[in-house]
Amino acid sequence: MREKEAEMQNLIWCEGDWREKISWQNDLGLQRADGVIEVLAARGAVLFHWYDHWSRLMAGCDGYIPREKLPSGQEIKAKAECLLKKDGNDRSVVRILVTPGDSDDMKTPSGSPKLSLDVRPLTESESKPLRLMTVVERRKVPNLKLACDYGTVNRNIQRIQGMGYDSFLYYDHIDGILEGPYENVFFITTDDWLITPYTHNRALAGVTRKIVLDLAQRSELFKRVSEYEIGIDLLKLCREAFFTSTTRGITPIKQIIYRAFEVGPDTLTSKLQKLFWKYSDNYFRERGA
Amino acid sequence: MREKEAEMQNLIWCEGDWREKISWQNDLGLQRADGVIEVLAARGAVLFHWYDHWSRLMAGCDGYIPREKLPSGQEIKAKAECLLKKDGNDRSVVRILVTPGDSDDMKTPSGSPKLSLDVRPLTESESKPLRLMTVVERRKVPNLKLACDYGTVNRNIQRIQGMGYDSFLYYDHIDGILEGPYENVFFITTDDWLITPYTHNRALAGVTRKIVLDLAQRSELFKRVSEYEIGIDLLKLCREAFFTSTTRGITPIKQIIYRAFEVGPDTLTSKLQKLFWKYSDNYFRERGA
Repeated sequence: MREKEAEMQNLIWCEGDWREKISWQNDLGLQRADGVIEVLAARGAVLFHWYDHWSRLMAGCDGYIPREKLPSGQEIKAKAECLLKKDGNDRSVVRILVTPGDSDDMKTPSGSPKLSLDVRPLTESESKPLRLMTVVERRKVPNLKLACDYGTVNRNIQRIQGMGYDSFLYYDHIDGILEGPYENVFFITTDDWLITPYTHNRALAGVTRKIVLDLAQRSELFKRVSEYEIGIDLLKLCREAFFTSTTRGITPIKQIIYRAFEVGPDTLTSKLQKLFWKYSDNYFRERGA
Repeated sequence: MREKEAEMQNLIWCEGDWREKISWQNDLGLQRADGVIEVLAARGAVLFHWYDHWSRLMAGCDGYIPREKLPSGQEIKAKAECLLKKDGNDRSVVRILVTPGDSDDMKTPSGSPKLSLDVRPLTESESKPLRLMTVVERRKVPNLKLACDYGTVNRNIQRIQGMGYDSFLYYDHIDGILEGPYENVFFITTDDWLITPYTHNRALAGVTRKIVLDLAQRSELFKRVSEYEIGIDLLKLCREAFFTSTTRGITPIKQIIYRAFEVGPDTLTSKLQKLFWKYSDNYFRERGA
């Protein structure tokens, strides 16, 4: 425990200063789930797709936490790079949390937002194919990355792991399959069509999701690549499925409830995974990592 | 700011001990909105309806955070009374937050839950009649009091206050009017019928809600008292409306969108408010406060 804490580097922007430790006791982020979050991957001191993550963070603050009360994007990026250099790990995860700050009555923000920046080694293990259950629930604000949309994930995971599954998909009777708890989801039909649920009010527009859509479109792996409404019935027409996420890239899915999917080195998912690794390697190499 | 912090008393149960300060930096409550909360009123060192609040807290932990990893109800109550005596205020608010604790990957709980107990003076002002807007949203888990269900409240309040309203009602096209952000809602029809939305999967079963329902049923103020589905159309048949909450008791509502309601000393709401004050006074007096 102590050792792990020592490995973590963090800085908190609080009342106009960067600090190493603050008290979160009265913070609305802790007491009322009022926070905006971002999670980024890094190799050495190079951040993967900084601008995309920072833009989404700002979209989450927009009209709620004024930008002038937060450090600039450049300043946050510079501080993150600084922490990554101190951290010295080959692969790291950078986490940013913005909250409206303390509150006297635990309802009304006192007007001094906080930004927490936290760097630690990337410990996620290799992406084994997953077995998924569905959960009839949806994120409250799918187009923003708000902390409150993660508050029931572990409750759902605990329940579905008791039934022998690894993780789950949010599912809605109107909009169908939406997304995973931390992931976007893709399907490949028996006629080589790559589909993923629409975003905006349905699922979070993931950074990895966008990269994978672009790579798939430019590749010759698929007959068609598009966003689509994916009802449970459509799964019968799908041969492969996978998750995309910042910390794991592409993770194959081998089962959703009773429906099994193809996994292994000969799948289109595996070919797309290689394209993503290559893209990611190039991205870091071009920036000196 | 400093002064206010000095007025607050708090203790945190963490890894089997009560501590005065801990780091929340790696806590899933802060980083992933994963917490169960309770808010209680106190006069002197007497807690209002302790058992009801504690039972609901335990319901929120049930099947997720094992009871044996938390201090007993008696122990939490004793610690709260201790803090209230130190605090020395006539009226206080007691807040309890339970989280699954720290996490190395900010996803998986490390298995050592935390319980934060926090006492501060009750600063809520007198209950002025409110003007409410509706917000098409619902709590994810209305039957439990989870922190994640409060993460969008201030965003909604900021939006509707820009339109000249004080607060809002969660509203759903299927189930109608559900509840306020921190309150249950009641309506009185033109023929003296007291109605409030069903709870369970629709609205939180508030402690004050229950007391008010009991008091109304035993009074001779109403022709009928019951839970009901309250669509927007039903508001036309209602003459009065009010909120119930732990920190404010009964608060009259004077407007919901375009619909105005009667307020003032001659209303049934005001009569019920007096019954509630009397009940609350008796409750505390009987217990020596």
